[in-house]
Amino acid sequence: MEKLKVAVAGLGRIGKIHLKNLCRNFPEIEVLAVMDVFDESEAIAREFNIPVFVKDFDELLAVSGVDAVVICSPTDTHADYVVKAAKAGKNIFCEKPLDLSLSRVLEVLKIVDESGVRLMMGFNRRFDPEFKRIRQLVEDGSVGDVHIVKITSRDPAPPPVSYIKVSGGLFLDMTIHDFDMARYISGKQVKEVFAKGTVMVDPEIGKAGDIDTAVITLTFEDDTMAIIDNSRKAVYGYDQRLEVFGNKGMAIAENNFPNNHKLYTHAGVSGDLPLHFFLERYEASYNQEVREFIDALVSGGDMPVDGKDGLLSIAIGLAAKKSMEEGRPVKVNEILG
Amino acid sequence: MEKLKVAVAGLGRIGKIHLKNLCRNFPEIEVLAVMDVFDESEAIAREFNIPVFVKDFDELLAVSGVDAVVICSPTDTHADYVVKAAKAGKNIFCEKPLDLSLSRVLEVLKIVDESGVRLMMGFNRRFDPEFKRIRQLVEDGSVGDVHIVKITSRDPAPPPVSYIKVSGGLFLDMTIHDFDMARYISGKQVKEVFAKGTVMVDPEIGKAGDIDTAVITLTFEDDTMAIIDNSRKAVYGYDQRLEVFGNKGMAIAENNFPNNHKLYTHAGVSGDLPLHFFLERYEASYNQEVREFIDALVSGGDMPVDGKDGLLSIAIGLAAKKSMEEGRPVKVNEILG
Amino acid sequence: MEKLKVAVAGLGRIGKIHLKNLCRNFPEIEVLAVMDVFDESEAIAREFNIPVFVKDFDELLAVSGVDAVVICSPTDTHADYVVKAAKAGKNIFCEKPLDLSLSRVLEVLKIVDESGVRLMMGFNRRFDPEFKRIRQLVEDGSVGDVHIVKITSRDPAPPPVSYIKVSGGLFLDMTIHDFDMARYISGKQVKEVFAKGTVMVDPEIGKAGDIDTAVITLTFEDDTMAIIDNSRKAVYGYDQRLEVFGNKGMAIAENNFPNNHKLYTHAGVSGDLPLHFFLERYEASYNQEVREFIDALVSGGDMPVDGKDGLLSIAIGLAAKKSMEEGRPVKVNEILG
Amino acid sequence: MEKLKVAVAGLGRIGKIHLKNLCRNFPEIEVLAVMDVFDESEAIAREFNIPVFVKDFDELLAVSGVDAVVICSPTDTHADYVVKAAKAGKNIFCEKPLDLSLSRVLEVLKIVDESGVRLMMGFNRRFDPEFKRIRQLVEDGSVGDVHIVKITSRDPAPPPVSYIKVSGGLFLDMTIHDFDMARYISGKQVKEVFAKGTVMVDPEIGKAGDIDTAVITLTFEDDTMAIIDNSRKAVYGYDQRLEVFGNKGMAIAENNFPNNHKLYTHAGVSGDLPLHFFLERYEASYNQEVREFIDALVSGGDMPVDGKDGLLSIAIGLAAKKSMEEGRPVKVNEILG
Repeated sequence: MEKLKVAVAGLGRIGKIHLKNLCRNFPEIEVLAVMDVFDESEAIAREFNIPVFVKDFDELLAVSGVDAVVICSPTDTHADYVVKAAKAGKNIFCEKPLDLSLSRVLEVLKIVDESGVRLMMGFNRRFDPEFKRIRQLVEDGSVGDVHIVKITSRDPAPPPVSYIKVSGGLFLDMTIHDFDMARYISGKQVKEVFAKGTVMVDPEIGKAGDIDTAVITLTFEDDTMAIIDNSRKAVYGYDQRLEVFGNKGMAIAENNFPNNHKLYTHAGVSGDLPLHFFLERYEASYNQEVREFIDALVSGGDMPVDGKDGLLSIAIGLAAKKSMEEGRPVKVNEILG
Repeated sequence: MEKLKVAVAGLGRIGKIHLKNLCRNFPEIEVLAVMDVFDESEAIAREFNIPVFVKDFDELLAVSGVDAVVICSPTDTHADYVVKAAKAGKNIFCEKPLDLSLSRVLEVLKIVDESGVRLMMGFNRRFDPEFKRIRQLVEDGSVGDVHIVKITSRDPAPPPVSYIKVSGGLFLDMTIHDFDMARYISGKQVKEVFAKGTVMVDPEIGKAGDIDTAVITLTFEDDTMAIIDNSRKAVYGYDQRLEVFGNKGMAIAENNFPNNHKLYTHAGVSGDLPLHFFLERYEASYNQEVREFIDALVSGGDMPVDGKDGLLSIAIGLAAKKSMEEGRPVKVNEILG
Repeated sequence: MEKLKVAVAGLGRIGKIHLKNLCRNFPEIEVLAVMDVFDESEAIAREFNIPVFVKDFDELLAVSGVDAVVICSPTDTHADYVVKAAKAGKNIFCEKPLDLSLSRVLEVLKIVDESGVRLMMGFNRRFDPEFKRIRQLVEDGSVGDVHIVKITSRDPAPPPVSYIKVSGGLFLDMTIHDFDMARYISGKQVKEVFAKGTVMVDPEIGKAGDIDTAVITLTFEDDTMAIIDNSRKAVYGYDQRLEVFGNKGMAIAENNFPNNHKLYTHAGVSGDLPLHFFLERYEASYNQEVREFIDALVSGGDMPVDGKDGLLSIAIGLAAKKSMEEGRPVKVNEILG
Repeated sequence: MEKLKVAVAGLGRIGKIHLKNLCRNFPEIEVLAVMDVFDESEAIAREFNIPVFVKDFDELLAVSGVDAVVICSPTDTHADYVVKAAKAGKNIFCEKPLDLSLSRVLEVLKIVDESGVRLMMGFNRRFDPEFKRIRQLVEDGSVGDVHIVKITSRDPAPPPVSYIKVSGGLFLDMTIHDFDMARYISGKQVKEVFAKGTVMVDPEIGKAGDIDTAVITLTFEDDTMAIIDNSRKAVYGYDQRLEVFGNKGMAIAENNFPNNHKLYTHAGVSGDLPLHFFLERYEASYNQEVREFIDALVSGGDMPVDGKDGLLSIAIGLAAKKSMEEGRPVKVNEILG
């Protein structure tokens, strides 16, 4: 079988993970070219024996034979790159979010749609073994009808304030994953959002116009609910838990740990902290999402996360922002228009 | 030392528990009399060698030498009995809630206050070993400043619809415990409530004007938050969990189980369900709350849960009700006036 | 129904527990008299309103109307008291062990047998909810045929050396419970014992001729095996665990804790130590064993732990002692003759 | 830096794992050649772009430039291949055991020693994150002086009887890992072995002269002890647990699971089975042992598991065999002479 030819744009933290996975774990793939604006990234390309390294996205698209592009560049480039790739007829894997502006997202999705190329959004947590197992327990009926979804999502430490300023805010930068998770796990659409946020971690975050601690209530179209709680700083590390309660049972996904040891001493029973952050915690998910992207490309089946999923998470995020600002629940349709 | 003389009003489920504890586990107490409207309860009085059994609360108060009354009769008698006991100069332990009407509660508390007797409200969960331990971890600074409180409180099965009709609704009947817990665990006052509720368990509950599934967001005065989720029916039994997240750590209280066994078979790893319902789950708490009531009486120290605690839980409950009805966050001060 | 009349001999730690249970939790029982050699114990009798307090076992037996005696006096009185009680026609509950000498045990059991009274040995751990649940999983076939039994039994701290000197040694004082548990859980008879012991906790224990750390392998009659490990000192408290492995599965009983909380901080995840020692850990079992003793008396059914059970645990203990001394596996039949 | 040149002998299950790790996870290594007796294995070599595929070990050694060989061929070839590699001046990583005959092992180790090449034995479990963490807790003093080691090691299903016949028996094939673990975790030498074994899983195993269920007591030189229990068939999967008890505490390594989910239904609380077998359970360890082999080669530091470790595990295994056959504890020195 002929190998699928891929190009990768952006060699930051996530870009490097995808590149490594593509090169080492997918014999059916060939990475033809990588692009990054920094000269230093050329060394990475060389390490993985990638024949072409460029610094411009147009040049990347111009490399002969590319079937699909994997876009891991900064958020503010996503929309442009997706549009260019779509117009060039390349299938696309794009990290979330597509853009922070809803109108731009709608515009981009229209272009993608018209182009006929296929687009997958990189909501990697859907591919995490813990959460996938919970989803499966919902799908196979073990949990029954879903009444309540609970998501805890806390980071070990906030990003630099400089990043926060351009992040789109906590709801679009961090909670967006949880909005997608609430939809994925329940299989339901979100109707209304009520969000409360505050600054407890670092006043500088507040000065930058953002919050660092939040609690969000989502109401699904059938009036069942999800609750999400976020913090930019859990001193004990990355806290990623999920619970689904239904009329037949409850399924819980606990945190993942580097090992399961317990130490009993006169001082108590203790164990190690959870896996530190997303690179460790979601390592398997990054590989699995690329696996399913490729499978969908090859099989022609549905993309496991598509442009509409990307759009809806952004709309929920914008509703959360508005809810917090106006102190009232906000319908997602107010945002989508 | 002379024994403290106690009278008990109401021998329903909770009344029997208190009577048994008072008779068996408190050598420093003597139960002089019990009162219940049902003839059948006389047998219980006899089983515990209680010298006096009456069917009328005034008669109970008239028994010579009573220092304190323990009120476990139906909710709609609480206010009257407390007023009578206060006027008779008896110290009072009263099951929650004092009344479903805020103005009546305020009236009663005023009378209690003027009478000089001492009143403890029976929020038993504060005395549960699990939750007490979490509170201690907050108090000793292990958790640091509290940023988020999470309470899960689900019953194994709904009460009869006839009961629901007079219960005051889910928020005043069931969530009232969680409102008190949020205040107790955090040591903070609630400023605002946003509540969403729906009917997922039994349409008859909806017809009775109530809900059976709810998610409530509380905002404390310092803008930190608590989230509560309730269901009238968890098929796996009584689900009572608590989590406190702060800037120094997180403390979690898990469910209690009849045993810790695990069975590994070809089908998976399994264990028993949590303790079935409140009588089993909170057995220790019922004893401990009476312990602390007596200690406060004897020492003259503060009551661990006082009338104001009772008042505030009701006010939060009424705010939740209004929030759900009007689809907006409601300030507790709107209720308290 | 007429109440069963009971007398209690010995008001040490266990005696007080049994007395309290008998007085408070068994309305169908009346404790007519208690006996203890210490004057101070009279106050305890008075606290529980026991009409008769004596200092001599014969006097206790002479109290009119006693149906059964509960013997909780020191080990070296057990045999005498049981013989006297049997000859006086009283049913007997006796704490383990009957005696440290096998010939004396055989002699006593013969007398009991001839007297026609009924004898239950106080192996309380059989009545622990954790272990009872495991036994039930063996009985109902969940575990299948039992291949391996594992018992961990470690004390939080050694008793005084003065006690160790008269204790009969670790195997007869401490492991005897585990020998009984191995038989109870598996439902099998022990054929051979191999024991290794050493002094790691306190050299004084060694000077007293005993060991404080041991590992024992039991071989059942069907050649399946049990392994027991003991220590006189686990700095983290009382360690009581059990595991049964069979051809259909494995059942594990974990330690019991005062609460299930977990604290996450930057230093790790921690929880409280197990319940400290046998009084806390086996509280429920002491009540339950008396429950089943009474039920057997009333119903006329089999005693849940009989004299033969007492005999066999002692025989296994003596085999363990011999095995350690001679450095070879010893058949229980070598001991029983 | 120049790459280390490696050759791999044997492309069975373990050989493939090592080959994959060497090719994908170690940029500092170059695999020059692989050898396997089966023609089919050439395809594997091609998949990993290995330039040379041979079917004979001598040819493998003859490949120019090889620094080290990784021997994963069947057990009965180990001794010969190690001798040849040593004589050819190649450093060696060899899967356990070196040989089933003690005299042959001694002979081989002498040759290796004289040749000056470096040898690492593939006891992969030492490199498992769970067990490494426990070892670290012993080393850093958290556990204190080690008094008791407990190892549970059970396979999900027995190998074919044809394999069992040439395996050297349960003690040398399966328990050999646990013997090594007992030494590694405690840092102590084994003085005496007492082993009991029986046939509970499959009578065919008995007919083949082997056992399938075993309990082994090891006595270390300081008279502390280890207990190991084995079964060829745990219906719930691969059971790999470890416990170390010392005078300052106890450390436990629990089984590893594919996820941490829990499902609560009316039937109980359940979770998934442990990772199925050694390929899944010890995946990380296979990579890590090669990591440390290479590090030791490059740094010139001590091999983390050397020939003497291989020798001692075999000697303990032979002592266990003799103990079981003769029904008595056997000193390891009886075997070593």
